[in-house]
Amino acid sequence: MPYRAPVSELRFVLDHIVGFDRVAATDTFAEATPDMVEAILTEAGKMCEEVLSPLNRAGDITPAALENGVVRTSPGFGDGFRAIADGGWIGMSADPEYGGMGLPITLTMAVNEMIGSGCLALQLNPLMTQGQIEALEAHASPEIQDLYIPKLVSGEWCGTMNLTEPQAGSDVGALKSKAEDNGDGTYAVTGQKIYISWGDNDFSENICHLVLARLPDGAEGTRGISLFMVPKWIPDADGKPGVANTLKVVSLEHKLGLHGSPTAVMQYDGATGWLVGEPHKGMAAMFTMMNNARLGVGVQGLSVAEAALQHAIGYAMDRKQGKTGRDADHILEHADVRRMVLSMKADIFATRALAMDCAVSLDMAKATGDAAWKARGAFLTPIAKAFGTDTGIKVAGDGIQVHGGMGFVEETGAAQFLRDVRVTAIYEGTNGIQAMDLVGRKLMDRGAAAFALLDEVEAFGNDDLTTAATHLRKLTEWMLEQDMQDRFAGAVSYLGAFARVLGAFYHLKAAAAETTRAPLAAYAAGRMIPEAMAEMAKARTGAAELYAVSTDVIAA
Amino acid sequence: MPYRAPVSELRFVLDHIVGFDRVAATDTFAEATPDMVEAILTEAGKMCEEVLSPLNRAGDITPAALENGVVRTSPGFGDGFRAIADGGWIGMSADPEYGGMGLPITLTMAVNEMIGSGCLALQLNPLMTQGQIEALEAHASPEIQDLYIPKLVSGEWCGTMNLTEPQAGSDVGALKSKAEDNGDGTYAVTGQKIYISWGDNDFSENICHLVLARLPDGAEGTRGISLFMVPKWIPDADGKPGVANTLKVVSLEHKLGLHGSPTAVMQYDGATGWLVGEPHKGMAAMFTMMNNARLGVGVQGLSVAEAALQHAIGYAMDRKQGKTGRDADHILEHADVRRMVLSMKADIFATRALAMDCAVSLDMAKATGDAAWKARGAFLTPIAKAFGTDTGIKVAGDGIQVHGGMGFVEETGAAQFLRDVRVTAIYEGTNGIQAMDLVGRKLMDRGAAAFALLDEVEAFGNDDLTTAATHLRKLTEWMLEQDMQDRFAGAVSYLGAFARVLGAFYHLKAAAAETTRAPLAAYAAGRMIPEAMAEMAKARTGAAELYAVSTDVIAA
Repeated sequence: MPYRAPVSELRFVLDHIVGFDRVAATDTFAEATPDMVEAILTEAGKMCEEVLSPLNRAGDITPAALENGVVRTSPGFGDGFRAIADGGWIGMSADPEYGGMGLPITLTMAVNEMIGSGCLALQLNPLMTQGQIEALEAHASPEIQDLYIPKLVSGEWCGTMNLTEPQAGSDVGALKSKAEDNGDGTYAVTGQKIYISWGDNDFSENICHLVLARLPDGAEGTRGISLFMVPKWIPDADGKPGVANTLKVVSLEHKLGLHGSPTAVMQYDGATGWLVGEPHKGMAAMFTMMNNARLGVGVQGLSVAEAALQHAIGYAMDRKQGKTGRDADHILEHADVRRMVLSMKADIFATRALAMDCAVSLDMAKATGDAAWKARGAFLTPIAKAFGTDTGIKVAGDGIQVHGGMGFVEETGAAQFLRDVRVTAIYEGTNGIQAMDLVGRKLMDRGAAAFALLDEVEAFGNDDLTTAATHLRKLTEWMLEQDMQDRFAGAVSYLGAFARVLGAFYHLKAAAAETTRAPLAAYAAGRMIPEAMAEMAKARTGAAELYAVSTDVIAA
Repeated sequence: MPYRAPVSELRFVLDHIVGFDRVAATDTFAEATPDMVEAILTEAGKMCEEVLSPLNRAGDITPAALENGVVRTSPGFGDGFRAIADGGWIGMSADPEYGGMGLPITLTMAVNEMIGSGCLALQLNPLMTQGQIEALEAHASPEIQDLYIPKLVSGEWCGTMNLTEPQAGSDVGALKSKAEDNGDGTYAVTGQKIYISWGDNDFSENICHLVLARLPDGAEGTRGISLFMVPKWIPDADGKPGVANTLKVVSLEHKLGLHGSPTAVMQYDGATGWLVGEPHKGMAAMFTMMNNARLGVGVQGLSVAEAALQHAIGYAMDRKQGKTGRDADHILEHADVRRMVLSMKADIFATRALAMDCAVSLDMAKATGDAAWKARGAFLTPIAKAFGTDTGIKVAGDGIQVHGGMGFVEETGAAQFLRDVRVTAIYEGTNGIQAMDLVGRKLMDRGAAAFALLDEVEAFGNDDLTTAATHLRKLTEWMLEQDMQDRFAGAVSYLGAFARVLGAFYHLKAAAAETTRAPLAAYAAGRMIPEAMAEMAKARTGAAELYAVSTDVIAA
């Protein structure tokens, strides 16, 4: 069952659900005309179908490997990467001054969705580079921008993010890597970093590591952290890769999935680096990189969900078992298989609309500078990340189930989707961290962004939906009155409820726009609204109830 | 984090939740005194901790392999199997006349839980043998019983189930394997069978395949199927393994998990077999084997959930990240990690109580012949299978999440639990099939068994629980008025709702029995009841809504 890029579905979401025309109406993004959008999605989709999708199994079967200190990538990945780079897809949203296309992030996300459906392990590479480009555009010196960004946009060089250390995961502030001023404009960076996605490869000329480390006078915690550009090969006077930097890949992780993506332990031994942004302000720069990467990871969940759904439908329409009492005897005509497939399809539509809605907000914020758009995008980002990746995991699991016994056999490919997507709920901040961000930082506006979204939902005028939105409004008010521990106790359920209310909203909008979508929308809303109500009940748990079960009882 | 057998927890469930004393009060099971139960659970638990649990990783890393037509099992599995056999754990519930202990199936399930927590891939072997023993006790001729059952009970020989063929999975009636009368009391069995768990091994003297095949005069569909005992080595006049039968392992599947369990494609080429039961009545015999195996597979979900929970708690209490604002800084003190761990713990308690409740019903039915007990056990079996395995998958997933990035790294072991348990929702009848059995066959009593269970729940007298039970009663009445397709459309949600209402009931009973359990019970009921309400809303979907989304739209 070959992957087919969902170009018309993406167009429908852009045109009828998330109001992409408003983005195209801005001066900043005036080039993003409907014809341009169609051309981009069609061209990118073709590459994903023809070049990337065929690589996906090879990456799983023949993982990236460390040989004599150098990473050998999976078969065909070099060609796949070149196709992505040559298509201009890495730097779609980058500044045209550096070779980018200056297009909306919404279109980057749409293209990323398809690339990730084709081959998620490979897509993680340009996703990291895209984040690095944004961080450099926002924070680096003109010299660094001029040298690095064009190479990153063209794909000659690749970018990585180096945050985590063994003792510093979700708690980034606990990191121990150090940087010392060499007195010549460079710094000596020393430390070990783990979970470095695409820490090395054999298809790019250079690898540009953005590394968080602490200067000698840096305070403890996140406030004393600085960001450094530490390239694998130190650029010479002509900007070509010169001598080797004092850094190395120590080992690669043996992972549940994403075998084609080398996850490195990196060692920096006084490696030469350049400061990016102000001293001690590294976290702000890193957040720039991570923020859009969070949406990008949510889209990875969508990517896998779409690929898994297509795979499952292909199987279900081929596999015959028993009498269905309907025209055809393939298993898609059996009620419970159909239920699974419709649920997958419903969740995918909601996830795609949510991701694109978030991206449109980010684009509108950039184009207009409007604080309300910015707040809307910031509020939707953790929801898009967590719900997108949860959907990826759920849909991949349902995809296995649709395959029956064949789903457990690796050759089918159904299991790979689950193995690959599982990490998306963990990296770029676990989904629990996303939920805490939502009920903490994202409610610091006293709920303004949340209430504005609920205004939109209620204005749509569907009774059941409005009832759910009203409950969610009351829950939001309740959250605002709680201390942070109580909010955290219900955070994941609050996020889950918000995602489902929005999901039902998008579906009902779709039904209003196109009558053929009404049946799926009715089915989706009939699931998402009751589920949202259940999540809302759970969201009011409160910390006291959690800690009433003592640690001794838990460990007994 | 070594596995610790939850002996006292099992005792609590038996004594305070499912009324095991009623089983022990019957003549049939008079030996199952509290002292006997304690001794059995303690002894079996010790073996699981010390012998089986250490094998679990080895089975994953070094899968069973086919070498020159013979299966070489994973390192240590032969010793592990011998420990299980020598402990008498295979034939705990088998007839003492054949060397069994004649103990309640409830105790077999309790011991099976611990064996599966220790090493699920290995546990699948005796589980298949246990099912075969039951089928032979109920349906085989005295000659076959006398020859085979003692060897199966002692573990000298192992048993397998051969149902599935490439075109006949959930639709067993589509099988093509044939059997012809040899005229000497034996039959020549020919055909290919797939997904044969433990189709071969290198640690038992003989392997006894129960094979479904069709006699020349067998009707089409399930009504024309007969069951045959087809041993790997044909027993000689002394009952010792003699000449090789004409059967072979063609290949082993490369699976997502359970690598230590060889899943074989078996080829029978006129292999010598003996009829078990009446001609054309093979499905009835197979159902005997499958029925308790279904409960056994539900318990497998529980096994993995318990092991994954212990593993996650061990990690969470060791891992320090950030400030928790509480006494300790390990991540179990963070609200969202605690939420995950409590949810895991709550679901496991409910799953264990459900499995044991079902087992007690089966034992009481056997001991008393009472039709109400029989119906109760039959109603609970598909719920225990589906909810148990869904819980295994969910808890294993949460276990990965608790580990953060380490959860995606195979060395941690968290991912193996998910890979291993995933198939339990598929084999012995997919969870969708279980749900269809529940709303179809198990409501053929016009809801009597369902209503009797809801009477028990309502009699407990908790207001929230009673409200949920009343809704479930109305939903059951609604189901009884629908045609089968409409029932099937809501079957999985109906089962999910029933499981959660029962789960909340068990928890509240636990709180009433032991006040230290009240906090977890409150937390559990506060989740399960709203979730049950959501599932009940979804259960009323109806087939029309499912098929309103046309196949063309799905495939578009």
